[in-house]
Amino acid sequence: MMKIYDWFDGPYPARVRIAIAEKNLQSRVRFESVNLWKGEHKLPEFLAINYSGTLPVLELEDGTRIAECTAITEYLDNLDGAPTLTGRTALEKGLIHMMNKRTEIEFLDAVSVYFHHSTPGLGPHVELYQNPEWGNRMRDKAVRGMRYLDGVLQKQPYIAGDFFSMADIAVIGGLVFTKIVKLEVPAELEALHAWHKKVQERPSVQNWMTMSGPAPV
Amino acid sequence: MMKIYDWFDGPYPARVRIAIAEKNLQSRVRFESVNLWKGEHKLPEFLAINYSGTLPVLELEDGTRIAECTAITEYLDNLDGAPTLTGRTALEKGLIHMMNKRTEIEFLDAVSVYFHHSTPGLGPHVELYQNPEWGNRMRDKAVRGMRYLDGVLQKQPYIAGDFFSMADIAVIGGLVFTKIVKLEVPAELEALHAWHKKVQERPSVQNWMTMSGPAPV
Ligand SMILES: N[C@@H](CCC(=O)N[C@@H](CS)C(=O)NCC(=O)O)C(=O)O
Ligand SMILES: N[C@@H](CCC(=O)N[C@@H](CS)C(=O)NCC(=O)O)C(=O)O
Repeated sequence: MMKIYDWFDGPYPARVRIAIAEKNLQSRVRFESVNLWKGEHKLPEFLAINYSGTLPVLELEDGTRIAECTAITEYLDNLDGAPTLTGRTALEKGLIHMMNKRTEIEFLDAVSVYFHHSTPGLGPHVELYQNPEWGNRMRDKAVRGMRYLDGVLQKQPYIAGDFFSMADIAVIGGLVFTKIVKLEVPAELEALHAWHKKVQERPSVQNWMTMSGPAPV
Repeated sequence: MMKIYDWFDGPYPARVRIAIAEKNLQSRVRFESVNLWKGEHKLPEFLAINYSGTLPVLELEDGTRIAECTAITEYLDNLDGAPTLTGRTALEKGLIHMMNKRTEIEFLDAVSVYFHHSTPGLGPHVELYQNPEWGNRMRDKAVRGMRYLDGVLQKQPYIAGDFFSMADIAVIGGLVFTKIVKLEVPAELEALHAWHKKVQERPSVQNWMTMSGPAPV
């Protein structure tokens, strides 16, 4: 049994949960809650698990740990030798990794910095340093990022081309985060809204939050 | 012939140049200079090539463009169906992507933010907004990152395990950048220094700066 350190409604954990469902690996993983709101991810015990102090982390049966959503997705997607999320050909891999990273830089990570720096974030015991001016720049960058993604989706059905991939999952993570920080997705971004409606029909995207059972108390 | 938009001594372009040499693809690419010091990467023409306004970008013969070092490396490494830099198995892919991303977050990208925010960077016509306090935090993060990488290299010969990979190349990019910003690599990080000496013996790491011919004027 593999183990995932995560928190049930976190936007980054959502990315890995969706990947798990897409790959039908639900029965091979169990989840261990690390309470972000209590700052458990900044305790020395957890920093020894992931130097960067972030969730999620995948732990294999032999104890090997893989942090970073992109890396975890690469691992899970290639386990069966038949990748569906990270690309089969060189070109697919290149385009998916480009759009995945671009989504992080221009949207998801920018919303995250806004959350941690310009809002109360996880609370004063976790957010020991805040730079609100930087956070606000990142919020504005994220809004521009949504416009860019809308433009991409005006030209192709999915973020990295013709099929659902890791890059779509990154955008879903970003949209999960916009809800938490109450950042509106402008109504005129019609292609982005239409794509969101379509991907939300996937069981993986419907059910990620309850994948680990009832919400921890 | 593929085309690479880059700048001859940039730390991120260095990552792709090293990958090209490792894969023996020198004869299949030509380089087009985008002068960072003149801010050519922020002009509308270039922003249409890469939304993020950064170098390098790979352009294929059919005009398809791949930005982001990690994505470009995935493409180049998988062209021949025999990846050597990005991993062959699920586990190798997972570990290499983790260490590649962690190196970016904790070291290379942090040095870059320091450069652009707390030093004159590319000059006042390019650095239209600076947040020096944030830049200094990122400098301190990068120094901690070097300590972390030193610890990794005390336990294994290369950044992601037993062999040279994309993750090592990311660290080399970070060390190229520390020279530009005159950030010292503490002498006591002996494992990091020893590893650097070792990887500098690779022809790919020796010759990247002259790969595109004489420096542009
Ligand atoms: N680059 C990481 C980012 C992960 C991340 O930021 N996770 C959030 C959980 S949604 C976190 O741990 N935040 C806690 C914090 O930054 O204090 C990845 O892709 O896995
Ligand atoms: N995430 C990008 C970062 C690339 C990057 O920052 N490149 C530098 C060149 S060394 C750049 O274009 N800097 C110009 C700027 O940020 O103004 C990648 O991995 O390719």
